Amino acid sequence: MYIKRSDGSGTVLPDKPICVISSASVVGNKEGEGPLAEYFDKIIEDERAGQDTFEHAESSFQKEAFAASMRKINMSADSLDCIFAGDLLSQCTPSSFNFKTAKTPFFGVFGACSTMAETLILASAYISAGAAKTAACVTSSHFCTAERQFRAPLEYGGLRPPYAQRTVTGSASVLLSDYDTAVGVRKIGKQSQKIASFTPGKIIDSGITDANNMGAAMAPAAFDTISAHLRNREISPSYYDLIITGDLGAVGAELLYTLMEKDFPGFRDRYNDCGLMIYDLKTQNVYSGGSGCGCSASVLGGYLLSKMRDGTLNRILFCATGALLSQISSSQGDTIPGICHAVEFSNY
Amino acid sequence: MYIKRSDGSGTVLPDKPICVISSASVVGNKEGEGPLAEYFDKIIEDERAGQDTFEHAESSFQKEAFAASMRKINMSADSLDCIFAGDLLSQCTPSSFNFKTAKTPFFGVFGACSTMAETLILASAYISAGAAKTAACVTSSHFCTAERQFRAPLEYGGLRPPYAQRTVTGSASVLLSDYDTAVGVRKIGKQSQKIASFTPGKIIDSGITDANNMGAAMAPAAFDTISAHLRNREISPSYYDLIITGDLGAVGAELLYTLMEKDFPGFRDRYNDCGLMIYDLKTQNVYSGGSGCGCSASVLGGYLLSKMRDGTLNRILFCATGALLSQISSSQGDTIPGICHAVEFSNY
Repeated sequence: MYIKRSDGSGTVLPDKPICVISSASVVGNKEGEGPLAEYFDKIIEDERAGQDTFEHAESSFQKEAFAASMRKINMSADSLDCIFAGDLLSQCTPSSFNFKTAKTPFFGVFGACSTMAETLILASAYISAGAAKTAACVTSSHFCTAERQFRAPLEYGGLRPPYAQRTVTGSASVLLSDYDTAVGVRKIGKQSQKIASFTPGKIIDSGITDANNMGAAMAPAAFDTISAHLRNREISPSYYDLIITGDLGAVGAELLYTLMEKDFPGFRDRYNDCGLMIYDLKTQNVYSGGSGCGCSASVLGGYLLSKMRDGTLNRILFCATGALLSQISSSQGDTIPGICHAVEFSNY
Repeated sequence: MYIKRSDGSGTVLPDKPICVISSASVVGNKEGEGPLAEYFDKIIEDERAGQDTFEHAESSFQKEAFAASMRKINMSADSLDCIFAGDLLSQCTPSSFNFKTAKTPFFGVFGACSTMAETLILASAYISAGAAKTAACVTSSHFCTAERQFRAPLEYGGLRPPYAQRTVTGSASVLLSDYDTAVGVRKIGKQSQKIASFTPGKIIDSGITDANNMGAAMAPAAFDTISAHLRNREISPSYYDLIITGDLGAVGAELLYTLMEKDFPGFRDRYNDCGLMIYDLKTQNVYSGGSGCGCSASVLGGYLLSKMRDGTLNRILFCATGALLSQISSSQGDTIPGICHAVEFSNY
């Protein structure tokens, strides 16, 4: 790998391909009623997924997504070298509990809603270093656990402002490997995906304190990372078929346009946001759109990689965004720092 | 890097050196009264560190440790490529808030009390991949924030059983680089430290549910990782001057002896635990010893690397241990899965 840096964060380009060998996503009822329903591997109607608590249910969503990604390529647990996983909850328990019997080296990651991109970057570097041949990148979120964690238990019945977003109930697992392993696992051809570059993000704090307005808290971080990435790569937005943020929602996406359009004309034509795609905002009563680790992850593991496989998309910039708040930091009146990690996927 | 695997987790050996170019640790009052006091860079007497909340104080401890590590080698923020940081609190806010103005790519990591070893492994792989030349590994814990997070606010005055441990108030920062950068930064000689190998751990759940007995919850994970490491490296415990766990405390360390001594005779002679070293258990009223991310981190950044620099220690196996529980998982009656990541430091 080598680093190109002309502005802000450095962009890293692997000199040997890091291959996507499998992906899967599993979502809840609400997401299964949305416009991307057909792209998810499984829709679990019961928000408890047959478990006794919502937290255990979130682990179950992860378990299903991970198992589906392994099953698709007949991969055995023995041949997986390591797992990178994280989620939104305190001490990332859905991830730890999901993998507590996995017998595979485990790296816990916390990047709030940017976690899928963070795990993809760390796993790519880990494989590129020769420290592993295969790695799983797994993340999840759940509407009911996130409400309890960040706002109030559902029973409280709190109302939310129209600029708030709804945490996606869902999980995705993306399996990466080095080139030789990928060739052994599946036919590597024109419509196989690789990670062509990535730009890890800095923390950007623009002073937002309203925990219902995470789109505004994260948009400046998305601007920082995406503009650094385009400058480092010396490309314009039209280089990509799609530049997609994680979960800026309607408010954050509009802010990002405003920030980007001066220096990067044509950005709007190539841009979308997972939080705006996973629900129908007109009919599904989800305020400003979807959010949560599971939002960008399930749109990537379901819709985006599927559209790359069928050739509709050939090159995308996946920019998962995270709001680094906690219930304690919000209660103490702190600002909400944001972060955005960008990962470029391309077909061969 | 390449992987050697004869048992359990694989052990990774860098083919180019990953160098320790600086380290620093900052601790609180109680730790400053302990037997390792002289090895810490700074002892902050005020547990609030002049801040309005304990959480902000924990960020301040991190800020001081990070700044001290950078100052020692006159390193500018511009020349640091990335930061790997984490802590015990929900959504790792002390780390995010510490680095929210850092302007350096940031990776949030959650490994509970194993976080320092996890950041060292991820940063080593990241540098080895060529994705960075320099990286900071930073972690912290604080007695008062951890009590509020995992048990009850201090004002509640809860009593604890004698097998419980005390969360260390402290932080450490370890700076790593590739060899060429290290040569530019400081004289690399016989008593410079490098990361010679590492073994990332699996999650091990042995069914412990008592959140006061984290030593017992983590000892089986330490056994799993250390025994895999020794088998993969085809060495006996005497290969190391010291094999040191993070925070098993008196109960966990005794359990680890019992698990290790059958297959690895001589283990007891080489073994110690950071949680037993940072306090004087006879006089300091700390129950079974220290715990927390800041425990193993400050003993590494202060005492251990200092003893390597003066040649008292030449080769150590640093095995930070983590208990992957949350207040919610404990309240829901869940078990406490453990994890242990091992990092081998050696002098040139």
